[in-house]
Amino acid sequence: MSEEKATPRTAVRRLPERQVDDPATLHAILDAAHHAAVGIQVDGQPFVLPMACARDGDHLLLHGSTGSRLMRALAGGTTACVSVTHLDGLVYARSAFESSMNYRSATVLGVAEEVPRPDKLRALEVLTEHLLPGRWAELRAPHAKELAATLILRMPLTEWSVKVRTGFPEDPPEDLAQPVWAGVVPLRMVADAPVAAPDLLPGRPAGPPGSCA
Amino acid sequence: MSEEKATPRTAVRRLPERQVDDPATLHAILDAAHHAAVGIQVDGQPFVLPMACARDGDHLLLHGSTGSRLMRALAGGTTACVSVTHLDGLVYARSAFESSMNYRSATVLGVAEEVPRPDKLRALEVLTEHLLPGRWAELRAPHAKELAATLILRMPLTEWSVKVRTGFPEDPPEDLAQPVWAGVVPLRMVADAPVAAPDLLPGRPAGPPGSCA
Repeated sequence: MSEEKATPRTAVRRLPERQVDDPATLHAILDAAHHAAVGIQVDGQPFVLPMACARDGDHLLLHGSTGSRLMRALAGGTTACVSVTHLDGLVYARSAFESSMNYRSATVLGVAEEVPRPDKLRALEVLTEHLLPGRWAELRAPHAKELAATLILRMPLTEWSVKVRTGFPEDPPEDLAQPVWAGVVPLRMVADAPVAAPDLLPGRPAGPPGSCA
Repeated sequence: MSEEKATPRTAVRRLPERQVDDPATLHAILDAAHHAAVGIQVDGQPFVLPMACARDGDHLLLHGSTGSRLMRALAGGTTACVSVTHLDGLVYARSAFESSMNYRSATVLGVAEEVPRPDKLRALEVLTEHLLPGRWAELRAPHAKELAATLILRMPLTEWSVKVRTGFPEDPPEDLAQPVWAGVVPLRMVADAPVAAPDLLPGRPAGPPGSCA
C-alpha cells in the first residue's frame, strides 16, 4: 500500500505471506507492464478490457480510444479495478496440489479520471516513452486532431495490493521421495529482431531507437 | 462467437475490423494462456484477479483456492468476465497516434460454476497437463483432502469476443516521409533452462517432462 497497510478491500486473504506492502515493488511491477486488465461494471455485467499502461509517478496512465464505450464509462468516473500480472515461471512440485506458478501481480482499486487537456501531451509522451523507449524525441509532434481523438486516463495509486510468488516448490516432507523432477522453469518475455515495415522509405534508420539493427 | 455473430454485449465497437468470429481463434488464444484476468463485482467494487486457466472443450477451467473470497463469489454464480491477452509486438508507426501493439485478446462473459466432485479429478488433470505438459502421468494421485481443498471453476464459452491486431503500422500517406524507422518489434514468451529445487533427491529425472535436461 502507499500507506502503511492494506485496506480491508485489498488485504490478501489467501496466502497472505505472498502480499507485499512496498510501493517500490508496486512501481516495479507496473513499470514492467505494457498493458493492464481494467475491470468495470456496466449494466450489471463486469467487463475486463486490456489497455496500454504506463506509470506516471503516483498514477497509472491508461490509454484507449474515445470511440470505446468502456473507455467512456471509465472516463465517466465509474469505480474500476486495474490488474497487472507477470508470469515468471512454472513451479513443478511433487504433487499436482503443490504445483504452482511464479508471478508478480498488482491490483489497483479506484476511480480513473481523464487526463485534462493541458496535461495530455505530457501524458502521451510518458506513455509513448514507456512503451517505445526513445521514440518520443524522433517523432513529429501530435496534430491537434490526434490529441483530441486520444483519451488518456489516470488512476491514482492509492488503494492497491501486490502479490508475489518466487522460488521453488514447497512440498511437504512426505512427498520429497516422489520419483519426479522438482524445480522451476523460468519464463520471460523477449523481443525478437525488429521487422521493418514494407513501406519504409530508403534512408531511414535501420531499427527502432537503441536497437543494434 | 460460438454462434454466427456477436451479441450486442460482445460486439467490438472500436476498430471492429479487428474482431474475429472464428471459434478456432478463440480456442487458440485460450490454449496459449497460462492465466486469465477474471473480473467480478463485489459490494459495488469491481475486482480483477489473475487465475490459472485451461480450456476443456467448450469451457474454460479456472483454478484457485477455496480460501479466496473472490473465488467463493465466483463459485456462487456471480456474473463474470474473463479476459486473456497475449502481447505479440510493439508497432512503431511514424507518429505517436498510429503507434500500437500487436496482440490477441479474448473476452468471455458469463457465469462460472464449480466443477462438481465427480468431474474434479479430470478437470485437475486437464489443468495440470495444460500448464505442465506431460506432468500428470508421473505425479502421484491427489489425496482426497487435496481434492477437497481445490476449487475448480468452469466458464462456458458461449458469449465471447476476440480481437486481434497483427502486422505493420498503418500510417497515413502524408507521414511516410517522416525520417524515422517504422515496423514491428515482435515479443514472445520464452522458457529458460529448468532450475532444479535445492531439495531434489539424487536419482530423480534431470528436468521436467519432455525437457532436454
